[in-house]
Amino acid sequence: MLRVPVSELATGERTLDREASRYVARVHRVRAGDELLLFEPVSACEAVATVLATDRDGVRCRVGEVRASSLRARRQVTLVQGIGKGDKLDAIVRDATELGATRVVAAETARGVVKLGGRADQRMQRLRRIAAEAARQCGRGDVPEIVGPLPWREALETARAPLGLSLCLWERATDPLGPKLRALGAEEPVTFAVGAEGGLEDAEVEAARSAGYAVTSLGPFILRTETVAAAVLGAVLLTVS
Amino acid sequence: MLRVPVSELATGERTLDREASRYVARVHRVRAGDELLLFEPVSACEAVATVLATDRDGVRCRVGEVRASSLRARRQVTLVQGIGKGDKLDAIVRDATELGATRVVAAETARGVVKLGGRADQRMQRLRRIAAEAARQCGRGDVPEIVGPLPWREALETARAPLGLSLCLWERATDPLGPKLRALGAEEPVTFAVGAEGGLEDAEVEAARSAGYAVTSLGPFILRTETVAAAVLGAVLLTVS
Repeated sequence: MLRVPVSELATGERTLDREASRYVARVHRVRAGDELLLFEPVSACEAVATVLATDRDGVRCRVGEVRASSLRARRQVTLVQGIGKGDKLDAIVRDATELGATRVVAAETARGVVKLGGRADQRMQRLRRIAAEAARQCGRGDVPEIVGPLPWREALETARAPLGLSLCLWERATDPLGPKLRALGAEEPVTFAVGAEGGLEDAEVEAARSAGYAVTSLGPFILRTETVAAAVLGAVLLTVS
Repeated sequence: MLRVPVSELATGERTLDREASRYVARVHRVRAGDELLLFEPVSACEAVATVLATDRDGVRCRVGEVRASSLRARRQVTLVQGIGKGDKLDAIVRDATELGATRVVAAETARGVVKLGGRADQRMQRLRRIAAEAARQCGRGDVPEIVGPLPWREALETARAPLGLSLCLWERATDPLGPKLRALGAEEPVTFAVGAEGGLEDAEVEAARSAGYAVTSLGPFILRTETVAAAVLGAVLLTVS
């Protein structure tokens, strides 16, 4: 059934907005009598809708019972991400949403430099909007929780997977990530902690170790922080799902 | 030993350029008598150099015997990537270089639309520069080969892993990628074929199947093409290395 993202899902008659109507009627040639699956990631709910008419005003439909989203991320995956310059965090939240992360904790690190200060609330709201939009676009029925900004140590405490695997990725670590991922159980939660551009300071790596994180290596090449996030989340999604 | 990217590596005395000198002397506080590992990814060679002096003109050093790079991608990994709009391919080549791809084949697909035409050579040269720069930055001693642009079918033929696994990623496939990656041998070559934004047409998916590619799914969410590349290359690098 065609999945269509909507905002504010409620049982009853409604007309889809312009963009959704175009997608449904023009791109997918849906006609009266066809069924759609409307979904709304932020509240993680969905409903089957029957198309009543497609005309100039848009696609009118009758929305059935609203229920919890059927297509959600299956594993609890948390990314603790050092906040860096520019819009890297936006791109990382977008990737993380597509790749099934269930929580992103924005963390302040020594080399990340950027202190959000008074703009913090605004910045977090922006990240939540980006996550919601990414979920709509990729057809995901829920959104990752966006937490922070928190100081690195607090972020680590908040994000640790109590019954799962907590990993801190560091370019000077010697313990490889691969075997740890291969040993991950099918439903086991996992947390990845990643520094901002410029990496983590020794004391921050020590803090991770003290907080119960295994400090692991991604291999000999020094990846950009946004590549690290996509690679580790991709690895969990694709090879140990 | 500190790895320092250079251009044109040759035995004998040389002064490192301004950027490399700053990196070596200021960031890493290297002094006369210390050793460096100079590397040049495009020709995939490296040499040990002994620092003779660090002064205002830069870092002078004596370069020893030039040999093949020791830090190279370990597995033959090819990415066939549909060419799309804008600079997505630039970002994908950068990610692919960091994540250990050894070859990127730029492919023309029906929905990728962009025909490079007369600008094709220029575009490929640009991608080669991006790969070289990404290799320098991530400390990789070699660069992926950049091939194309080729029509989709030709790209598939060129890129197929003869003694390995060839996979075409498609959002409507039902066969999951995970088990195939888990079954991959340690040195087995692997090829991933990925459409541009907008996806592949049915005939293009059929062409992949006929060319010996297994058509596989990344899961229920519809990923952007650049996320697909990072996720699959990350999965190969991190979990089956």
